[in-house]
Amino acid sequence: MSRLRGIHDEDLEAIEIGAAILGTGGGGNPYIGKLRCREELRRGRKIEVIPLDELDDDALVVSLGGIGAPVVGVEKIEQGEECLRAMRALEENLNVRIDALISSEIGGANAMEPMLTAAQAGIPVVDGDGMGRAFPEMQMCTWSIYGHCSTPAAMADEKGNVVIIKSTRSEVWVETLARANVVAMGAAAGIAMAPMRGAYVKTAAVPDTVTQALSLGRAVLSARRDNSNPIEAVLAHEDGQLLMTGKITDLKRHLKGGFAVGHVLVDGFGEFAGERGRIDIQNEFLVFRRNDVVEVCVPDLIVVLDVDTGLPITTEVLRYGQRIAVLALPCHDLLRADLALKVVGPAAFGYQDTTYSPMPRSKKMEPCDAT
Amino acid sequence: MSRLRGIHDEDLEAIEIGAAILGTGGGGNPYIGKLRCREELRRGRKIEVIPLDELDDDALVVSLGGIGAPVVGVEKIEQGEECLRAMRALEENLNVRIDALISSEIGGANAMEPMLTAAQAGIPVVDGDGMGRAFPEMQMCTWSIYGHCSTPAAMADEKGNVVIIKSTRSEVWVETLARANVVAMGAAAGIAMAPMRGAYVKTAAVPDTVTQALSLGRAVLSARRDNSNPIEAVLAHEDGQLLMTGKITDLKRHLKGGFAVGHVLVDGFGEFAGERGRIDIQNEFLVFRRNDVVEVCVPDLIVVLDVDTGLPITTEVLRYGQRIAVLALPCHDLLRADLALKVVGPAAFGYQDTTYSPMPRSKKMEPCDAT
Repeated sequence: MSRLRGIHDEDLEAIEIGAAILGTGGGGNPYIGKLRCREELRRGRKIEVIPLDELDDDALVVSLGGIGAPVVGVEKIEQGEECLRAMRALEENLNVRIDALISSEIGGANAMEPMLTAAQAGIPVVDGDGMGRAFPEMQMCTWSIYGHCSTPAAMADEKGNVVIIKSTRSEVWVETLARANVVAMGAAAGIAMAPMRGAYVKTAAVPDTVTQALSLGRAVLSARRDNSNPIEAVLAHEDGQLLMTGKITDLKRHLKGGFAVGHVLVDGFGEFAGERGRIDIQNEFLVFRRNDVVEVCVPDLIVVLDVDTGLPITTEVLRYGQRIAVLALPCHDLLRADLALKVVGPAAFGYQDTTYSPMPRSKKMEPCDAT
Repeated sequence: MSRLRGIHDEDLEAIEIGAAILGTGGGGNPYIGKLRCREELRRGRKIEVIPLDELDDDALVVSLGGIGAPVVGVEKIEQGEECLRAMRALEENLNVRIDALISSEIGGANAMEPMLTAAQAGIPVVDGDGMGRAFPEMQMCTWSIYGHCSTPAAMADEKGNVVIIKSTRSEVWVETLARANVVAMGAAAGIAMAPMRGAYVKTAAVPDTVTQALSLGRAVLSARRDNSNPIEAVLAHEDGQLLMTGKITDLKRHLKGGFAVGHVLVDGFGEFAGERGRIDIQNEFLVFRRNDVVEVCVPDLIVVLDVDTGLPITTEVLRYGQRIAVLALPCHDLLRADLALKVVGPAAFGYQDTTYSPMPRSKKMEPCDAT
């Protein structure tokens, strides 16, 4: 496809589906963000997309999005300008003008937030993001991993409260303090992180992921329209692997430290009859085991789709008896470097004895050059 | 006594005792702050005190102190420059130089914190404070009550984390967000609130309370030295009233939302034999009942002293069998106005059916002129 230049009303549903798939069960639901982006477009505002390699080296790029509990994001609708206020507070604090926005995570709701704010502010959104998927914590962004200091970061809620995280001991402390503030703010807020220069974003961002979400969603919609298999469409588009089709026969899920934690058991059917799958959850799907042996784990993507519709199922709507397809999609090489695996590999999620083995790709990817 | 101009080593113990008495059971222990002030003096730094009426009308005065859990303040010793870093962060954020510091609450540990920071920064500390006692939350300061907006406020911990609470919907939100941050920071941090002009401080601060704490402590020390009754000395100095002498026969105390909450029962002895006292606690002593009838409540001061030594007993060291004297001391008129009673009267602590009746004074106090 030609390079993405602008997002139009008809693109939003495809991005919603693509972003939800890349959310690997977490990242929040992009549905409300889609509706809000649509409203902005109908008001005559524009969502402009700028490819990474066209970004000016000196451009000030801000990673921005919603922070909070995905469950709350559905129950407590945003006022709508939380992220814009966070961005303005950051500009005021640093006395700069921000040139472009970028999503911290393309997977889930934060695919939409920077597009929305970019439309409101009249600046472009960069075609890329900081994860190429969703992760539960902010220090898991590629730019944090590869050396960006995210402070000062500005947070704003719907009530008019604004907090600046001015400096911290580490990127993990930004996450810790932001989490404490968002809980006090009512579990939903916008956050804008310290600007990065365009030159750095080009090396540290997962590239082209807005295009990827759009194109992936279009593939699913097209398969559904043609009565062909949407799961096949996802696998083909993402160079993925079908791990299992089966029925959910057990589900443990509870809230722990603000995260949805647990696991789901799957009894295989069709070609997977007789096999038992298990997926561990911390907001996102972390680890897939077949008959108790780890087969795929973070940072590769584990995706659960409704076996009939091909639509993604997030961790909070999993339930007993659902008929699902479990897919593995390869993550970007930026997440596979040693430096990255310390932050987003299995050990970072408490799996000290699990070694990450990158799932194979059939297609060639561009080499990672940010290390 | 002549006007206080400087704090010397020999003054610190008296201020410690006076501040602890005015803490009405809470406010944190000023002991460690005393040692740290002593160290500053021994290094050759000075603690200068400026009387309220000599403050320049345009002077920028900052209310500053420690925030956290009193229990943690004892277990986790401060690094020592938390408040100074908070003050510097505030100066940088506003691009101003701060002229003087003032204590948010003279009762307890925060009597010492501004003196310590003032010595480090080489600026004076104002003879006054925002409570004339201790209260559990920051919006209970007189300057918040009478209209000061405390944002931006800067917080710093011992690890190098700095957070700016940039703007909030209300003074209560400053407290809410600061509390969330200090919990994340490990339950101890320094906080510096938005500067006030000297002219406002003159009307809104409880006056002369550094002098008061010093002079009160000296009265206790002098009585102990002369083998006269230190409790009588406190009553005479503060125009107070002896509510009861007795033995603690029951104590309920638990942590709820970060506060020490509960009550203590006292069986009177001596002239109070046959009477039963009850004191309700939320960090500080809130309400005193004699035989189930409310007799004294916030904002007047309820003080518990060891009946033999006259030294104050804070809520966290209360225990069964202690022989205590319960005193009531009149609060300043700034806390008795209708506007103030909404924030620091019994209803603000959940006693909806309790009406505050100011305890009588025998001496004349200067009228309140900040309303």
